[in-house]
Amino acid sequence: MAAKPEALSIGVLHGPNLNLLGRREPAIYGTRTLPEIDARLTQLARDLNVRVETVQANEEGALVEAVQRMSERVAGFIVNAGGYTHTSVALLDALLAVDLPFVEVHLSNIHAREEFRRKSLLAPRALGTIGGFGPLSYELGLRALVFHLRRDD
Amino acid sequence: MAAKPEALSIGVLHGPNLNLLGRREPAIYGTRTLPEIDARLTQLARDLNVRVETVQANEEGALVEAVQRMSERVAGFIVNAGGYTHTSVALLDALLAVDLPFVEVHLSNIHAREEFRRKSLLAPRALGTIGGFGPLSYELGLRALVFHLRRDD
Amino acid sequence: MAAKPEALSIGVLHGPNLNLLGRREPAIYGTRTLPEIDARLTQLARDLNVRVETVQANEEGALVEAVQRMSERVAGFIVNAGGYTHTSVALLDALLAVDLPFVEVHLSNIHAREEFRRKSLLAPRALGTIGGFGPLSYELGLRALVFHLRRDD
Amino acid sequence: MAAKPEALSIGVLHGPNLNLLGRREPAIYGTRTLPEIDARLTQLARDLNVRVETVQANEEGALVEAVQRMSERVAGFIVNAGGYTHTSVALLDALLAVDLPFVEVHLSNIHAREEFRRKSLLAPRALGTIGGFGPLSYELGLRALVFHLRRDD
Amino acid sequence: MAAKPEALSIGVLHGPNLNLLGRREPAIYGTRTLPEIDARLTQLARDLNVRVETVQANEEGALVEAVQRMSERVAGFIVNAGGYTHTSVALLDALLAVDLPFVEVHLSNIHAREEFRRKSLLAPRALGTIGGFGPLSYELGLRALVFHLRRDD
Amino acid sequence: MAAKPEALSIGVLHGPNLNLLGRREPAIYGTRTLPEIDARLTQLARDLNVRVETVQANEEGALVEAVQRMSERVAGFIVNAGGYTHTSVALLDALLAVDLPFVEVHLSNIHAREEFRRKSLLAPRALGTIGGFGPLSYELGLRALVFHLRRDD
Amino acid sequence: MAAKPEALSIGVLHGPNLNLLGRREPAIYGTRTLPEIDARLTQLARDLNVRVETVQANEEGALVEAVQRMSERVAGFIVNAGGYTHTSVALLDALLAVDLPFVEVHLSNIHAREEFRRKSLLAPRALGTIGGFGPLSYELGLRALVFHLRRDD
Amino acid sequence: MAAKPEALSIGVLHGPNLNLLGRREPAIYGTRTLPEIDARLTQLARDLNVRVETVQANEEGALVEAVQRMSERVAGFIVNAGGYTHTSVALLDALLAVDLPFVEVHLSNIHAREEFRRKSLLAPRALGTIGGFGPLSYELGLRALVFHLRRDD
Amino acid sequence: MAAKPEALSIGVLHGPNLNLLGRREPAIYGTRTLPEIDARLTQLARDLNVRVETVQANEEGALVEAVQRMSERVAGFIVNAGGYTHTSVALLDALLAVDLPFVEVHLSNIHAREEFRRKSLLAPRALGTIGGFGPLSYELGLRALVFHLRRDD
Amino acid sequence: MAAKPEALSIGVLHGPNLNLLGRREPAIYGTRTLPEIDARLTQLARDLNVRVETVQANEEGALVEAVQRMSERVAGFIVNAGGYTHTSVALLDALLAVDLPFVEVHLSNIHAREEFRRKSLLAPRALGTIGGFGPLSYELGLRALVFHLRRDD
Amino acid sequence: MAAKPEALSIGVLHGPNLNLLGRREPAIYGTRTLPEIDARLTQLARDLNVRVETVQANEEGALVEAVQRMSERVAGFIVNAGGYTHTSVALLDALLAVDLPFVEVHLSNIHAREEFRRKSLLAPRALGTIGGFGPLSYELGLRALVFHLRRDD
Amino acid sequence: MAAKPEALSIGVLHGPNLNLLGRREPAIYGTRTLPEIDARLTQLARDLNVRVETVQANEEGALVEAVQRMSERVAGFIVNAGGYTHTSVALLDALLAVDLPFVEVHLSNIHAREEFRRKSLLAPRALGTIGGFGPLSYELGLRALVFHLRRDD
Repeated sequence: MAAKPEALSIGVLHGPNLNLLGRREPAIYGTRTLPEIDARLTQLARDLNVRVETVQANEEGALVEAVQRMSERVAGFIVNAGGYTHTSVALLDALLAVDLPFVEVHLSNIHAREEFRRKSLLAPRALGTIGGFGPLSYELGLRALVFHLRRDD
Repeated sequence: MAAKPEALSIGVLHGPNLNLLGRREPAIYGTRTLPEIDARLTQLARDLNVRVETVQANEEGALVEAVQRMSERVAGFIVNAGGYTHTSVALLDALLAVDLPFVEVHLSNIHAREEFRRKSLLAPRALGTIGGFGPLSYELGLRALVFHLRRDD
Repeated sequence: MAAKPEALSIGVLHGPNLNLLGRREPAIYGTRTLPEIDARLTQLARDLNVRVETVQANEEGALVEAVQRMSERVAGFIVNAGGYTHTSVALLDALLAVDLPFVEVHLSNIHAREEFRRKSLLAPRALGTIGGFGPLSYELGLRALVFHLRRDD
Repeated sequence: MAAKPEALSIGVLHGPNLNLLGRREPAIYGTRTLPEIDARLTQLARDLNVRVETVQANEEGALVEAVQRMSERVAGFIVNAGGYTHTSVALLDALLAVDLPFVEVHLSNIHAREEFRRKSLLAPRALGTIGGFGPLSYELGLRALVFHLRRDD
Repeated sequence: MAAKPEALSIGVLHGPNLNLLGRREPAIYGTRTLPEIDARLTQLARDLNVRVETVQANEEGALVEAVQRMSERVAGFIVNAGGYTHTSVALLDALLAVDLPFVEVHLSNIHAREEFRRKSLLAPRALGTIGGFGPLSYELGLRALVFHLRRDD
Repeated sequence: MAAKPEALSIGVLHGPNLNLLGRREPAIYGTRTLPEIDARLTQLARDLNVRVETVQANEEGALVEAVQRMSERVAGFIVNAGGYTHTSVALLDALLAVDLPFVEVHLSNIHAREEFRRKSLLAPRALGTIGGFGPLSYELGLRALVFHLRRDD
Repeated sequence: MAAKPEALSIGVLHGPNLNLLGRREPAIYGTRTLPEIDARLTQLARDLNVRVETVQANEEGALVEAVQRMSERVAGFIVNAGGYTHTSVALLDALLAVDLPFVEVHLSNIHAREEFRRKSLLAPRALGTIGGFGPLSYELGLRALVFHLRRDD
Repeated sequence: MAAKPEALSIGVLHGPNLNLLGRREPAIYGTRTLPEIDARLTQLARDLNVRVETVQANEEGALVEAVQRMSERVAGFIVNAGGYTHTSVALLDALLAVDLPFVEVHLSNIHAREEFRRKSLLAPRALGTIGGFGPLSYELGLRALVFHLRRDD
Repeated sequence: MAAKPEALSIGVLHGPNLNLLGRREPAIYGTRTLPEIDARLTQLARDLNVRVETVQANEEGALVEAVQRMSERVAGFIVNAGGYTHTSVALLDALLAVDLPFVEVHLSNIHAREEFRRKSLLAPRALGTIGGFGPLSYELGLRALVFHLRRDD
Repeated sequence: MAAKPEALSIGVLHGPNLNLLGRREPAIYGTRTLPEIDARLTQLARDLNVRVETVQANEEGALVEAVQRMSERVAGFIVNAGGYTHTSVALLDALLAVDLPFVEVHLSNIHAREEFRRKSLLAPRALGTIGGFGPLSYELGLRALVFHLRRDD
Repeated sequence: MAAKPEALSIGVLHGPNLNLLGRREPAIYGTRTLPEIDARLTQLARDLNVRVETVQANEEGALVEAVQRMSERVAGFIVNAGGYTHTSVALLDALLAVDLPFVEVHLSNIHAREEFRRKSLLAPRALGTIGGFGPLSYELGLRALVFHLRRDD
Repeated sequence: MAAKPEALSIGVLHGPNLNLLGRREPAIYGTRTLPEIDARLTQLARDLNVRVETVQANEEGALVEAVQRMSERVAGFIVNAGGYTHTSVALLDALLAVDLPFVEVHLSNIHAREEFRRKSLLAPRALGTIGGFGPLSYELGLRALVFHLRRDD
């Protein structure tokens, strides 16, 4: 991979339907909107002295391309792949191809829902997984990834 | 969800490859083209005093976004998700997120084909399912959805 | 099969426990009784210029025999096999033996219930399937079957 | 449950073999010892203005009893059940019996190891799960649980 | 299908992440880039007196549309669907819809990798499959398809 | 359901082949005949101040109809469905339709026999299950059901 | 079992839809009618110096009762249970209850048809099985059973 | 096994978390405490002219040892193994080793709960099973075991 | 296939270990030796006016070659493939390659033994199957095959 | 392995029934005979400046021994194991034991046939696989193997 | 691991119920008691010039702790985990954590018993396994482990 | 079985590819050759006062015949069936047919390798199994078998 800019940069991928947060099944996903989540994440990033770059896409291929494109600038990813978590070999392959560490996060506890949500294609290749804490899942994921990247320094 | 316009409006989603209707495996899918199907559906809608808005897309994400976008205007969906019927958690999530009733329709009888076509991810959350009657499946689906929506009045 | 009478006749099979409709688990099956359903179906048949002959039976063998007996007079069947949908090879064989098209209908959406209700032995050999719309499922099934039979003229 | 003491208290359960940390398969579990982990967790607890009470046990029944006993004093649990994660209905039942929220944590990413480690009996009833970040998993779990408990205030 | 131009033309589909070739997991996928592969394939095509038209896309729907669009001009396809090999009913349906022969190729030996890569949705409907030979897989696939098409003359 | 007569009445269903008791595989089912079992059950009913009404049928549909018919008079059922235990969705539906509590009983321990006897379709919806104690299973079932019904008073 | 009459008597059970033989799916089941089959079987029985008693029933329970009733007079059974072969625990239990040897026969080769026809509940407890030879299957079954019964003399 | 004391003695094993009865998930397990259950059981034992010896343990090994130790004094066991029902080969082996009859009991109907609770390792080797009747399950189990032991006299 | 000699000739294949008949597990396979079986079969063949050619081999490949070699002379096969019944794709392929009808026979009832013996690779492509009648299975198989071949005249 | 002769030599293994090519199921396997295939392969080998040594055997063990014996002389194998593809651990072990690269080839597309043909024991350890192109599969396999061996120079 | 004493020491773990040997199911486990087995093992150890340290425990956690504690003194383990063989991830983890070679032994042949006994969690990580020879299994295991440890010298 | 010679004789079966020992995957199978193994085994036999007769064969049928032939002279077998362990019903049947005790041995630990190697068809009928100790496995097997045979004296 090409040389990274000096300040640590983290990519954040929001998968399909996450743009609906706040109005989508609030009993499961909570009432905070995606811009609100991104704002808080940016605030935490500042506290941790890193930068975050966020993308939301509803298309599998757009997420694949985001991974490819952002890989030039970021040192790792926070990935909430939504429904593609369980089905996208292509997204997994993109993450493997760019060879950067990533943390899988989920708003809801995927183990407490339908059987088909319990299996993640990404998880076996992730650095780690965090799920069930609503928007806080992203913040914990950011802490974990930054900790990991700095430990590697 | 925002307030709906007074006249009942129904969204119709045509999934991948349905734009090829009329030339695609006619022994299975029949000889009528998609515009012909839409024309007949529009005619029936008029008879039933509702409006239909139709979309065809070959991309999973485009269908997800169609659901999101149309949800502002329609009271429910007729969904023929084609190949995504069996694989798209993202489309299922979009339909759940907008919280509108939908009817799953198929041109062919999916239970009479390959094993992998027998399982629908959408069906357990649909209002009901209709399949095997060629283009008539859409018309029956429209009747069923309109009946359901008016019963709720 | 023997020659059919000139006016198109359709057999309607109601399986086990459907005689309880109206008082059986109304949250799932609705409040309309079987005679009311049959009355509406007869009315629709008249509108479509066909005749319907209905049978309700709680015994698997009685349904098998109804198929055999009615096959002399009808051009196809509307079949709601109730609990036998999932278990009766004998009923499937009867429908195959008389070699008439049939439409499988269900009041409830069988895909939204217990796992064992999701598999139908009849569906792979049916013309098509309709489920989830309460008594309307029968009416849609009648429309579909009549349309199919007349198209074959 | 009985009334809790005013200052929020959190129980931390370390399952079998975690007393060996630091010398056990360091490539998977890291080099920090359990007392070191507990010390850091206590420090973080102080920062978050809560108290932690930790237990390590190699016996399934001892963990069951720890849950029962600590439930009088704590408002929730951080649980790393080690090998019992995948097999202990009894521990799950203890956690359900005391009816307190718990976070499941793991040092390693259990999805990247043997197949039998991928299924957790506890996860479907947990508030959420965190795994793969070494000792940091505990700290993130503590943050998540405290956040959850205070949000409920 | 419409009449084809006189000189035999072959479509080549490169699926998701193949644009990264050369830098993606070189131990598995080799060091040659996609333009290099295409250049060699074009050279071989010239030797075989056919033309090749190549497309790379990261989106499932874009591949579906490429199949539809190219089907007007080509006599068959070489398909390396990457991660969609294992999941895309929509791509399979597109290939069936245009009713042209296709050869499935893979750079790596998919039977030697994760279990989920061993099952191809496309393979049962392909003319044949070739995998494990790196970029040479494409060249062998081209030879096979041309041979097949000319045999049919 | 219609109002019940004042004295508590319990329906007892004996499924297929139970009329052969006493001569059927005595090593498994014991030597007591069905009339002898019914006589003892009637005696116990008198002691418990309830009435029992018993039916034996070899046909699945006859059991369905017995449930429907007896539901007008009884407050619950003791059900030994014999071979239909494992296969009859129709009988399950009848019991659900009449919405009365029922206890599933078996003479033999079904878990100690062929694999296909270990799964009961009725058990998940029963009040409880008792099996393995020969004719005593019925008597224990009667005690349990009466206890339950009176507790509900 | 009660004492048998001196001349050896064999019961023949024809299951559901076998009364349709001759007109039912002749490509699978042949063109001979059930009375014709019975006539030939009676002729063979005479040659073998035994008597046959035949029953056809479409109801599972009627077959159960035929087994019970005929068991007083016959020394064994030829059983073509049709669709109940694969589903009827009750019929299996009846045959076990009367404790007489039986031969399972089929007109078609059940291993060459749908997957669900490949499993017979009866076969593991039969003396032997014969299938695939059309009406001749019965005749071979009769030879086998008579041979077995006489060997036991 | 050593000679038993003259008065019949029965062992009662309460597995993990049963010491919490009365406060544990009362919707499932009821409001009666374990001492109350034991008191009633002792009362019934007196009526039946036997003695009961009860043990509660949260540890699998402690239950194994209880079986071993009590086997010197008792003629059989009532076993509610709680969560160990589904997982403990060791407890099964202990019961087989001491070669005494046992009845498996459950407070709740295990067939109506999570899938993993439906399978009991103990059941195939038990005398019989009783479940779903709350504390009454123990009393019915005691009746059944005493009846069985006395019948064996 | 080449022209057959005028007198009908039938190949009989005895698979592995059948040369041990008479001393091999007599409780399962009987006491008659293979030469005795062949002698009786030859006698029956003479009665039926056909010739039989028999081969016994313990090697899978030898059976494959016997099929190939004998296919020049015989009109069909009686096949008792012994242990290869359940595992030999090669033998199946040989039988398909020579395109002659064959009857699968077994001495024992394979459905009454270990699970792995219940599945035959040959059965779905056989004319029919016969099993469980000891040496008589061969004789019935010969009758069935000759009947079939003459019917085809 | 011992030193190889200077000119590159390739072993070609033809498994069971391939000696029948040309007359065996021509719709699946084509009309060319094995000597014709070998002749063309020898011609191509000459063009590629290598030598081929071919063996056909119907016995699993003979193939195992061919691998062992030829391994002294060849640099790799083209393997069409026919029916042993799916069942022979012994042949796999032979190929692993001699530690030479091999290419798996098939005449037909094994993914388009019976389910049991879809799984190859050899494929996960092969260099690559080629199937579905008739005799051309061998030629492509030879090209691939030679390319691979020379690349390793 | 810490430095070992000079004379080679071997740990022997006897799992649950092995303290009952001699009186537990003697048809399966033999008549020799555990002290007798230990005595013979000690004798053999002396012959082999090593020392053995034996522990028997009925509790999973006690075995975990024995592994941890003894790991300071021994060079490897002989493990007969009894019922925990099939269920204890915790015991497996203990053995992996101390990173010492171990041999799995069983008195009975676990492959000849219930299905659930055929799968060992320990076996894939053991040096090797020995089972079916009664107390001799331990002695063979000791020989194997000592041989292995000395070979490593 | 015929009378055995006075001195105890043991048959040793080496399956496919074991003739390659010493050069075959030495990381798994070690560096000792088969003649070396046999020599050591013969030495041990002499020490134990028995004789061994060894056979190596690459063909399944040859192993079947070796079992048959040697059964006249030996009192039991040591069997390392190599790849046939997992697939050969024919070899299992040969061992059952001659009705002699046998010990299954393996050089490697088959539970630590590919999934398909974990299941042995022979193991459930073996006296016992030993695996993972390289050539020592044979020696331990010989000890075990001799011990067993002499105990039976």
